Amino acid sequence: MFVGLIMLLSTVNAKAQQSQSTDGQAVKKGMVKVTILYASGEGKKFDMDYYSNKHIPMVKSLLAGALKLTAIDKGISGAAPGAPAPFVVICYLYFDNVSAYQNAMAVNGGKIRADISNYTNIQPVIQISEVLE
Amino acid sequence: MFVGLIMLLSTVNAKAQQSQSTDGQAVKKGMVKVTILYASGEGKKFDMDYYSNKHIPMVKSLLAGALKLTAIDKGISGAAPGAPAPFVVICYLYFDNVSAYQNAMAVNGGKIRADISNYTNIQPVIQISEVLE
Repeated sequence: MFVGLIMLLSTVNAKAQQSQSTDGQAVKKGMVKVTILYASGEGKKFDMDYYSNKHIPMVKSLLAGALKLTAIDKGISGAAPGAPAPFVVICYLYFDNVSAYQNAMAVNGGKIRADISNYTNIQPVIQISEVLE
Repeated sequence: MFVGLIMLLSTVNAKAQQSQSTDGQAVKKGMVKVTILYASGEGKKFDMDYYSNKHIPMVKSLLAGALKLTAIDKGISGAAPGAPAPFVVICYLYFDNVSAYQNAMAVNGGKIRADISNYTNIQPVIQISEVLE
């Protein structure tokens, strides 16, 4: 009975963890967030299908271990209804600290950067931030 | 025994929900994310203390109900170690849909915008996005 309960709790816990990761819900204060911004503009192209189904899965696979969570935003508009969105896409990669990001990119950065031209002609802006809240 | 199990499961579930909300972790696909970016630059000033302790609490209070979650990032650097961060601060406000944001801002936007000069001389860039992942 006791063992059964513990097994049951473990199952519930594992499921909760999994859905937290899928939905990017395990964000903690102090984590390092790498924000990759693709600015919109005349003549700019972005293949969302390739990005979501090829590029991001590749990034997750290459940075597995160091990369804790990912999130992707698709631009709708500026502040005013109908105003153009400043960014086509903003992507977020969460790490425990800056070293974890730098070490992972030192090994895999070349392969990741080489794939950018497969989905966009936008030169992304990259920001490393600390999650305050 | 069966009732006991259900109660136990409910307790575990309730705890998981609670910690998700406290840490801003209840982000769901399809939510609307308003991103407010304060670009860095020569002569730019930003009072983080006022922003965290006065401005954001005021925004939360004014938009309560419509505003589901907030997040704040503080810039550390660009992609390369030591490179300047493109943004001093990036703030995120989550709503269920665009109308919820627009309706809340139609009533409270003036008061929120009037407070900006109390903590920064940076004109924020505002992006409305859909949370894809």
